[in-house]
Amino acid sequence: MTWKALMFDVFGTVVDWRTTVARELRGALAPHGIDRDWNVLADGWRELYQPAMERVRSGGRGFAILDELHRENLDELLEREGIHALDGDGRARLNLCWHRLDPWPDSPAGLLELGAGRVCASCSNGNIALMVNLSRHGKLRWDAILGAELTRAYKPDPACYLGSAAAIGLEPGEVMMVAAHNGDLKAAGELGFGTAFVRRPTEHGPEQTTDLTPEGDWDLEADDLIDLSRKLS
Amino acid sequence: MTWKALMFDVFGTVVDWRTTVARELRGALAPHGIDRDWNVLADGWRELYQPAMERVRSGGRGFAILDELHRENLDELLEREGIHALDGDGRARLNLCWHRLDPWPDSPAGLLELGAGRVCASCSNGNIALMVNLSRHGKLRWDAILGAELTRAYKPDPACYLGSAAAIGLEPGEVMMVAAHNGDLKAAGELGFGTAFVRRPTEHGPEQTTDLTPEGDWDLEADDLIDLSRKLS
Repeated sequence: MTWKALMFDVFGTVVDWRTTVARELRGALAPHGIDRDWNVLADGWRELYQPAMERVRSGGRGFAILDELHRENLDELLEREGIHALDGDGRARLNLCWHRLDPWPDSPAGLLELGAGRVCASCSNGNIALMVNLSRHGKLRWDAILGAELTRAYKPDPACYLGSAAAIGLEPGEVMMVAAHNGDLKAAGELGFGTAFVRRPTEHGPEQTTDLTPEGDWDLEADDLIDLSRKLS
Repeated sequence: MTWKALMFDVFGTVVDWRTTVARELRGALAPHGIDRDWNVLADGWRELYQPAMERVRSGGRGFAILDELHRENLDELLEREGIHALDGDGRARLNLCWHRLDPWPDSPAGLLELGAGRVCASCSNGNIALMVNLSRHGKLRWDAILGAELTRAYKPDPACYLGSAAAIGLEPGEVMMVAAHNGDLKAAGELGFGTAFVRRPTEHGPEQTTDLTPEGDWDLEADDLIDLSRKLS
């Protein structure tokens, strides 16, 4: 099977969000004399991500881009933690740390290699501005930024995968979804997409317990994007 | 003024649609014994472009992507010309010639240079699949494909420019619109965008009479995208 396009999950699959967010939290808060386990605080911010999207997916609220959800989640996190040091501008600046997440070391070269042979597009829940900035920061090459903002639907809502494939003029069976998350691949696979699992065993830190191994009959497994490129060639 | 992003018109500004479309019309029809002035036939196809989009802009029909409008226009053109040689598959293949338009010679290197310093995004009436394929064909580098399909509005509808800028998180005053067409720049300029006029004096062939010179007080004028890069640096 030759796939005409690859669609990529980005947070965790292409970029290491946790390391960057923890570093940026420290950078924004430590100068105010605040001391925390910054990884735990980053995890706390991230834990509000699925519930926030679920309110959109369930119809509880209209579509709002991820920058907006991230900001609401940051306000909630800081309130819960009793951190009042940052004003609105400071929070707005910190919120943009999701626009400068560092890539995994193999991602820039991997996407370049993979993109030489077929269309490579992001299919992330991140909004377009976030993806543009993060991709310039990390030298990540895409043919198109697809995903949630384009389709106004958050994964694993089928509309996000199906609308993204339709935008590049392809059927699900012509497109492989690439992700480090079994849930993402399960949702895409059920719609007829090809599936590639990329191992990112430290996305959640050295003691990660989830998504360490493929939990479905995925079409491919790879150790990173360079390995994926080799397996697709 | 430092522009945070450039948004580009594509047909005529970045790619030479007429030469490619004329060549593809000949390639599809000449083997059937049909003989025409292929440039005139290409112009005929293109002349149906604005009226087709106007039906969307005026609310006469819902949004339909440009591939669909191009196909309807092709059917109309062939009917008018009494050309019945192509079946549905042949027409579908010919319709995709808009996905493989050759770039102007300076465009690949120009976009690479321009993109090193700031966000460069397409803001075309072409649909996303068309832009992805045309950009791979011509080695055109973009940070994002914005424009009509994303915003569900055809230029010069303000919604197309404003929605494209919003998608990259910028205000009109932070973005420069780049086009070889005064009408495109007029519409963008009235919304507060910066404006750069690129001379493409043979877009419509050697006897072109329109858009030979800037017809407004544009922020920049350039002979091509390399020249634009020099003037922005």
